[in-house]
Amino acid sequence: MHVFTYACLVSTQAQVLYDFAAEPGNNELSIREGETITITNQNIGGGWIEAKNSKGEVGLVPEDYIEVSAEDDEWDEEWDDVKSSGGYAESEAGEGGAINRGGAHGSSMKIALNNGEVGPVWAYPDYQLDCVVADPKKGSKLYGLKSYIEYQVTPTTTNKPVNHRYKHFDWLYERLLEKFGSAIPIPCLPDKQVAGRFEDEFIKMRMERLQGWMTRMCRHPVISSSEVFQLFLSYKDEKDWKMGKRKAEKDETVGVMVFSTIEPEGLPDLDLIEVEQKCEQFNRFTRAMDDGVKDLLTIGNEHWKRCTGPLPKEYQRIGKAFQNLSSVFTSSGYEGEAALTDALTAAGKTYEEIAQMVAEQPKKDLHFLMETNNEYKGLLGCFPDTVGVHKAAIEKVKEADKLVAAGKITPSDKTTMSKRASTMSYSLQAEMNHFHSNRIYDYNRVMQQYLEQQVKFYEMIAEKLRHAHSRFTTM
Amino acid sequence: MHVFTYACLVSTQAQVLYDFAAEPGNNELSIREGETITITNQNIGGGWIEAKNSKGEVGLVPEDYIEVSAEDDEWDEEWDDVKSSGGYAESEAGEGGAINRGGAHGSSMKIALNNGEVGPVWAYPDYQLDCVVADPKKGSKLYGLKSYIEYQVTPTTTNKPVNHRYKHFDWLYERLLEKFGSAIPIPCLPDKQVAGRFEDEFIKMRMERLQGWMTRMCRHPVISSSEVFQLFLSYKDEKDWKMGKRKAEKDETVGVMVFSTIEPEGLPDLDLIEVEQKCEQFNRFTRAMDDGVKDLLTIGNEHWKRCTGPLPKEYQRIGKAFQNLSSVFTSSGYEGEAALTDALTAAGKTYEEIAQMVAEQPKKDLHFLMETNNEYKGLLGCFPDTVGVHKAAIEKVKEADKLVAAGKITPSDKTTMSKRASTMSYSLQAEMNHFHSNRIYDYNRVMQQYLEQQVKFYEMIAEKLRHAHSRFTTM
Repeated sequence: MHVFTYACLVSTQAQVLYDFAAEPGNNELSIREGETITITNQNIGGGWIEAKNSKGEVGLVPEDYIEVSAEDDEWDEEWDDVKSSGGYAESEAGEGGAINRGGAHGSSMKIALNNGEVGPVWAYPDYQLDCVVADPKKGSKLYGLKSYIEYQVTPTTTNKPVNHRYKHFDWLYERLLEKFGSAIPIPCLPDKQVAGRFEDEFIKMRMERLQGWMTRMCRHPVISSSEVFQLFLSYKDEKDWKMGKRKAEKDETVGVMVFSTIEPEGLPDLDLIEVEQKCEQFNRFTRAMDDGVKDLLTIGNEHWKRCTGPLPKEYQRIGKAFQNLSSVFTSSGYEGEAALTDALTAAGKTYEEIAQMVAEQPKKDLHFLMETNNEYKGLLGCFPDTVGVHKAAIEKVKEADKLVAAGKITPSDKTTMSKRASTMSYSLQAEMNHFHSNRIYDYNRVMQQYLEQQVKFYEMIAEKLRHAHSRFTTM
Repeated sequence: MHVFTYACLVSTQAQVLYDFAAEPGNNELSIREGETITITNQNIGGGWIEAKNSKGEVGLVPEDYIEVSAEDDEWDEEWDDVKSSGGYAESEAGEGGAINRGGAHGSSMKIALNNGEVGPVWAYPDYQLDCVVADPKKGSKLYGLKSYIEYQVTPTTTNKPVNHRYKHFDWLYERLLEKFGSAIPIPCLPDKQVAGRFEDEFIKMRMERLQGWMTRMCRHPVISSSEVFQLFLSYKDEKDWKMGKRKAEKDETVGVMVFSTIEPEGLPDLDLIEVEQKCEQFNRFTRAMDDGVKDLLTIGNEHWKRCTGPLPKEYQRIGKAFQNLSSVFTSSGYEGEAALTDALTAAGKTYEEIAQMVAEQPKKDLHFLMETNNEYKGLLGCFPDTVGVHKAAIEKVKEADKLVAAGKITPSDKTTMSKRASTMSYSLQAEMNHFHSNRIYDYNRVMQQYLEQQVKFYEMIAEKLRHAHSRFTTM
């Protein structure tokens, strides 16, 4: 329980998140949003704590209606506020806190897997979910003792923004990893970072990466329709969010259990050899792509360094050399020098401008190429684990005959295991097909963007030089 | 005498340069161009040697009509074939060998110096001389024992080509330096080089530099109208060339003597302070320009290295990385991959082409910028000597008063010295004005050329990338 955790650490003061009107005769205390209260007893239980307001009035308030500092610390690991509360939280599950999110699969709902043109595919929704991560705002709690950045996340479905801090994204990541990690590679979030995390440049970069991560999650039919993801994108209010969080953390259909919810509709069971072959094929491909992506990143990094380091310096020196020569020429005292020296100075300045352009260009093109490849590097890094789960299942099926012979499992158990392995293989195929179609889309888009910006860059240089050229007189 | 020099060294055989018809009863031997003869006695004197033809016939032939190997050795210093002949050559001066070249100043002719708009200027001819150095041909003498490269030099005046080897250019350079070096900076020829001097690349480069040097000499009104330069450009035949060479080598109006031939028409004598000021001004300017040019050369060299070394390698690696990714994608087995992989391969190849373009571009633009600045570096390197001559003259005039007082020179001598210093200052001014106008022309031209090529380069890259971009499908 976060109240307890922090009471002794920092302060027993808390801020009121929502209005609460005390029911008369219940020993309750009315509180108003934004008010600061002092906690006098956090060991009441049942979701209540005892607090004192600024007027000195004491009474019980709902624990969820207030907040102390547990969530202020962006890098702390202290957020399993429910789990640490022991036997308490259970009581709320039935209280109607979690909204029934329309169209979302609950943990017990089936994940459809169809036979598409390219083989097994996930069931894609008619409408592709997306969201915008924007408007990072600095907030503070505990009277400025703790600061954080809050991002506005607006799903295209509702167009209603919700606010989330990095730690909420991280919470979502952990839930998705736990629940779907065996079947779907869940890419890591952009790195945590302590130093400089309030600097504009960093905030912008993190926002961009969170946007990339969210877009990828939105695009995934299984993830985007999951209850936890829907909660994250469209919780109604703080209470709804807290309820939903607790529910998600109690979800038991996680790990390999997720395969039990996958239904390969109209797909025949695969035999072991086919399963193994598919698995090996994907393994080879993802490893080869991982190498290719890392290679491109290495080269991209070197190119970035050259483009922002020695290359613009050289153009600048060329520019300076022209301008220097121009000023020497000016000192000649010779008549009719001005046309040349003016043109030479202009040419020199042009090269200085080019230096500037060269240095700034990577942010306009190479950056996105690198970001996309970085995303894929992260995504590809998840595949060995996903593939590992499949390999383990295959090994189990291989052992099944012995186990049946030894009387340790029934032939029916063996059939179930084979069926499960087949389902896993189908879902891996569906996942690979999802991966491929996204990859084709992403690389098409990023290459187009990269080349478009490169074209503009070289055209602009040519234009600048054409202008510089025109200043020299033909004799 | 070259025949003697080489007779004991290599062979007594010689090749006949021109037809010669023996006069009957004179003990002479008729020879034909291209014929090989054996020298039987080179100590005849009077311009004659005794030789034997292939039929075994023996007789006297004119020394100048044959050639052994003295001129075959491009790097040897063995060419003062006349000077080493002792008292002999004199006899030929009157024999009508040297043609009276129309419009050329003989050594005794006056060099006009006028008052132009920018101050003292050389008298410029109505028609600007120029020449084309082209068509380098490998020749050999002594039955292939000695090889050389001969360039065809065609003056725009006569349009009649003459052939010259590097050593002839060098001979001309020495004559010009000796005769005009005190008044006019004579830039060095392109370097001598032994290793690789028959390689196409080297021959092309040397020819280009000889062309640059000749063009600069042609543009100079004093040099281009000098007898020795006219000889070099338009000698009638081998005999005329040899006669002219001997005459030029005997020219006594060399060194500071050249100032006695300069006539500042309508220009008043300058006083010592003015002379000194002008001298200092030019000294300052040429030194500053020397620094500026060297600076540009240093940067240009670094840029050259980068453009031909690491930069194209990087573009190549980018190109390879794209192509590599494309072939990984092809291995996915996913349907509908071809459009992307084709486009990605094309983009990769485009970057490889760009790598090639980057590596080759310096030859198209930076090269000429470097060559021009190299030429100017050479030219500016001559100025300290030229300025030194003037400073020495100024010092002499400064001492003149003492010398007059000590009775060592007459007041009239002093007046002559002052007059000479004044003439030197005017000619330095004329030379500086010549230098400035050429410099403005040259830098205008080379900057135009450089920028034009740069524009083309960047436009072509943009065009290539635009094409690569168009291959990606918009989704």
